[in-house]
Amino acid sequence: MPSPAPARRVAVIGAAGFGGAVCAHICGRHPSLELAIVTARADAGRRHDELYPAYRVPLELEPFDPDAVAERADAALVAYPHKAAAGAVRALRERGLKVVDLSADFRLEREAYERWYAPHEAPELLEESVYGLPEAHRDEIRGAELVAGPGCNSTAALLALLPLRGRIEDAVVDIKAGVSGAGREATGETHFVSAIDNVNPYKTEGHRHVAELEQELPGVRFAFVPHLLPIDQGILASCYATTTEPLSRDEARELFERAYAGEPFVELLDEPPRTRDVRFTNRATVYVTVVGDRVLSFCAIDNLWKGAAGQAVQDLNLMLGLPEAEGLE
Amino acid sequence: MPSPAPARRVAVIGAAGFGGAVCAHICGRHPSLELAIVTARADAGRRHDELYPAYRVPLELEPFDPDAVAERADAALVAYPHKAAAGAVRALRERGLKVVDLSADFRLEREAYERWYAPHEAPELLEESVYGLPEAHRDEIRGAELVAGPGCNSTAALLALLPLRGRIEDAVVDIKAGVSGAGREATGETHFVSAIDNVNPYKTEGHRHVAELEQELPGVRFAFVPHLLPIDQGILASCYATTTEPLSRDEARELFERAYAGEPFVELLDEPPRTRDVRFTNRATVYVTVVGDRVLSFCAIDNLWKGAAGQAVQDLNLMLGLPEAEGLE
Amino acid sequence: MPSPAPARRVAVIGAAGFGGAVCAHICGRHPSLELAIVTARADAGRRHDELYPAYRVPLELEPFDPDAVAERADAALVAYPHKAAAGAVRALRERGLKVVDLSADFRLEREAYERWYAPHEAPELLEESVYGLPEAHRDEIRGAELVAGPGCNSTAALLALLPLRGRIEDAVVDIKAGVSGAGREATGETHFVSAIDNVNPYKTEGHRHVAELEQELPGVRFAFVPHLLPIDQGILASCYATTTEPLSRDEARELFERAYAGEPFVELLDEPPRTRDVRFTNRATVYVTVVGDRVLSFCAIDNLWKGAAGQAVQDLNLMLGLPEAEGLE
Amino acid sequence: MPSPAPARRVAVIGAAGFGGAVCAHICGRHPSLELAIVTARADAGRRHDELYPAYRVPLELEPFDPDAVAERADAALVAYPHKAAAGAVRALRERGLKVVDLSADFRLEREAYERWYAPHEAPELLEESVYGLPEAHRDEIRGAELVAGPGCNSTAALLALLPLRGRIEDAVVDIKAGVSGAGREATGETHFVSAIDNVNPYKTEGHRHVAELEQELPGVRFAFVPHLLPIDQGILASCYATTTEPLSRDEARELFERAYAGEPFVELLDEPPRTRDVRFTNRATVYVTVVGDRVLSFCAIDNLWKGAAGQAVQDLNLMLGLPEAEGLE
Repeated sequence: MPSPAPARRVAVIGAAGFGGAVCAHICGRHPSLELAIVTARADAGRRHDELYPAYRVPLELEPFDPDAVAERADAALVAYPHKAAAGAVRALRERGLKVVDLSADFRLEREAYERWYAPHEAPELLEESVYGLPEAHRDEIRGAELVAGPGCNSTAALLALLPLRGRIEDAVVDIKAGVSGAGREATGETHFVSAIDNVNPYKTEGHRHVAELEQELPGVRFAFVPHLLPIDQGILASCYATTTEPLSRDEARELFERAYAGEPFVELLDEPPRTRDVRFTNRATVYVTVVGDRVLSFCAIDNLWKGAAGQAVQDLNLMLGLPEAEGLE
Repeated sequence: MPSPAPARRVAVIGAAGFGGAVCAHICGRHPSLELAIVTARADAGRRHDELYPAYRVPLELEPFDPDAVAERADAALVAYPHKAAAGAVRALRERGLKVVDLSADFRLEREAYERWYAPHEAPELLEESVYGLPEAHRDEIRGAELVAGPGCNSTAALLALLPLRGRIEDAVVDIKAGVSGAGREATGETHFVSAIDNVNPYKTEGHRHVAELEQELPGVRFAFVPHLLPIDQGILASCYATTTEPLSRDEARELFERAYAGEPFVELLDEPPRTRDVRFTNRATVYVTVVGDRVLSFCAIDNLWKGAAGQAVQDLNLMLGLPEAEGLE
Repeated sequence: MPSPAPARRVAVIGAAGFGGAVCAHICGRHPSLELAIVTARADAGRRHDELYPAYRVPLELEPFDPDAVAERADAALVAYPHKAAAGAVRALRERGLKVVDLSADFRLEREAYERWYAPHEAPELLEESVYGLPEAHRDEIRGAELVAGPGCNSTAALLALLPLRGRIEDAVVDIKAGVSGAGREATGETHFVSAIDNVNPYKTEGHRHVAELEQELPGVRFAFVPHLLPIDQGILASCYATTTEPLSRDEARELFERAYAGEPFVELLDEPPRTRDVRFTNRATVYVTVVGDRVLSFCAIDNLWKGAAGQAVQDLNLMLGLPEAEGLE
Repeated sequence: MPSPAPARRVAVIGAAGFGGAVCAHICGRHPSLELAIVTARADAGRRHDELYPAYRVPLELEPFDPDAVAERADAALVAYPHKAAAGAVRALRERGLKVVDLSADFRLEREAYERWYAPHEAPELLEESVYGLPEAHRDEIRGAELVAGPGCNSTAALLALLPLRGRIEDAVVDIKAGVSGAGREATGETHFVSAIDNVNPYKTEGHRHVAELEQELPGVRFAFVPHLLPIDQGILASCYATTTEPLSRDEARELFERAYAGEPFVELLDEPPRTRDVRFTNRATVYVTVVGDRVLSFCAIDNLWKGAAGQAVQDLNLMLGLPEAEGLE
């Protein structure tokens, strides 16, 4: 498959975190992208493949300098924590780069963002930002200069629920998430001895990712509880929805078939999904059934791939006019 | 603590399975019980501490002979699979032993049992059987000759929901369960390589344990889905209930406090429970909160202890007039 | 990279086992190979991607029929257990296919094979068989029609010791191996509850893989003990060798540098290797140091890749005149 | 079992770390000890059972004040890191308390200590200190006022090698250790995502625990390499020893039988030990065999019990004239 156009030069900002590291990994072997620069804050000066040998990115992590990035790259994936991301994104947008931001900073309307997170650092960019779930906003992403990569939990939940859009009143979303979702920081929670042979709910009174669900599926009341599991990479969203009109199993199934017919990365299964089967891939596997008056739907993804870096590259492919799945298979 | 009465002689029938093995372990060090005989089917002839060194039961597993058991024991814990249990229980009841059965055979009304399981092998015993959840049926258990140990998933779910009895219309019960719950049999599902770094729902169209919930909490509509996790022993039940009348967080909390005030093994927490903290104990930790119009409650137990063997001994203590918590702390 | 030559048609015999499944996975996306047929014994009739969704091989497993295979394939990877392999290999060799056999059947001289394993089923083929460790026998593999893929433990141990060939008298080889090495069969040993949170030595009185070490490093006395670990894919060989002449750390290091200078899949590290960093790759990472009068060397591989399927394809690439690393990066 | 003597009041200094926490847990339910005070540095002011719910120690952690400790306790278990421990031990010894120190500070002769660790902070106490491995120094421990608990790795290795004392020239000691051995501090190494599905050697050029082996088994040359494993609590020491005189398997076995005949916590097995079987116990399981000219011996312990806290209480029992195994079964 020849790629006659010159490769697009891409920067990964914040490439020392788990999500950014996978961004660098994917871009580093993408046929139409050239990984031009990787940056880090605390780890600047170290080589990426020293931190992440398996990802095999033979570049030194540099401190973030927007001018240097603008000179050497045409687009950027920004993998900073929220609040820190906004400033970096603004600096890059001002210099004309196309940006996919993996943080929460550009996912929500300002009001919702400030309710769940913090005062917004770059509100003027919210207008141009597009919510980067291709299965819901593909066309807008194609034309966008700034795309906000969805949260990992939200991605799994939305893919389990989107085909029911307009038909559900409320939904219980029970999330099971691996430890890599908690990030690279070593904490009591991510300590092996705390996480192994354990499962526990957290943020039971409200997790910020629910704001994305409320935005994408307006009018639905959600209960949304994440649980931490002793797995590495993976999220399973188990959704229990009440529909406005009764729906048979076949009807529900058909809605999902129609919704995901042409999707390159969503696969509708005949049996419940397993996170293990989508590890290290950009795939989402989905299953839907109806029990009594409830629609039960499940979605498994790798939180660092379809839930973060993989989806960000999928977005970037769309923004750059590349084949949507390129570099992701 | 002197135990002046002669120790009650106890048999464990089916002591080679995971649940039966823990029964033998607990009885073997119980101050007022004498573990008189352990039986097994396939493993008869082997020593229990060869199969389970950590449990330190220095007895040889014998084939099951009801006459021999009746001669040497006053009570029995039967840890057979359903359907196989009924016959063993009948043989022991006919010989006058008090029995706690850990299978599903005596948990349900006949109609419900035969709908979810199979034609009943000893229906005449259903009348005398008591559902062995002490938190719900303590007095009946005290006077019973035959007690049916609740299912592990049901125990966790019921302890999360019982204080709401009479106040809820429907409940989503999302169960996270460790691999030991699948039993000692080596299968594709219990293979390390299949279970590690994985999570998946199963029996999404209906799991038999829901029948116990429907029996103990009549009138509630349930969605009930178990998920298999890469943990060893442990169950977390996450329950999302809709109440008939609005309930504040404080009111919900108070209902739970009242329900579990004197309970020796149920602990109401100020934060969400972790299965790790109840491993290898008979404790159940419970947390309740209210989000919007839903009551969220969570319960963590060890599936082999409070979910099976520990609870069976708790039942037996009650049946024999012993202190309820004896041998379980 | 255009591959102008017609793709070589490959069969994977025994593609339902862990090793064979990875063979099918690799061949299925190899630029110069066409995966023409996958066979299985018990699982014939099922689709490969039903058994192994992550590997994405969209073929139905067929029963093994050597004529059908010979008609549709030019080469075969045989992933049967030892003794069963020999017959399949003979049938394919008689029909002219090039074969890489992953079992032990063609790794050893007949005498050693029959001492450690069983009477040989196809001794007439031993003459033409080449031991398939490219780092030791690359040129012979290039010209071979039948190659015996080395054992997984042996591969790791040999890559840790080969550069010391001729300089060591004895070596302790302490192997740490993941559960996938025990195969797909569900047994007490591979049960999650047995393997998790555990480590144990096995075959302490003699493991058959030592025969390969004795053959490749003649004259060395070995102690060789494998240990089972709660990891999925991965082997670490820790080797403690006594040298005939004193060796400094620098000298040892230089021997390894020289030995592995041009090797596409062996990487000499500056710090001890971690199995995690080579998971799902054909790479071997090696570290050598000297403490007192002993050379300590360590090698990490993925047992299913460099320890089985990956190395088999590496061999096949050599046999077919393809770039050695093709399809393996 | 009546315990007519008044309970000895015990302090646990540094009860917030993994080892100290288990000390508090064991003392808290010990029939002849009264857990009078638990101290911590960073966590002072928090309740112990908030940090470690499973250990059920209902005490608040206090800052360390030697006078307060001396007033309320007759003996102390000190679970500080090395160097910090010496000062605390001195303060308590000056106030007349019997002390078991779990750090390295009093395990070694001064010269060896200062070579491997740091300048000694309380060298005047080295004279009275006894190396707390009961299987080697029971009588001295009985009369001691200050006992140094052996290192976890050293305990496992010594129990595997002690019966060969005087008969071996050199030994390779390959240690497999769980993550809890790395302590409670959250680091890159103890992060779940780093430790799971991984195994790696560390300190390959020399681990300090070898100094204890050299002291207890003088004249033996050791190669000693620890490996980090994805298990929680557990150590397996695999030892490969060269003997001065040939030894048959039966002779080796007999040496071990004699050495461990009356030992309450060492069990000689007929098959290789598994760490899983000794989890959460003070037991050590040992296996010995002979292959060629090498004696292979293996020992499994729980690093926090027999490798730290359990053994410390075993020592304290001896020092206080209590039954050696009391509170440890």
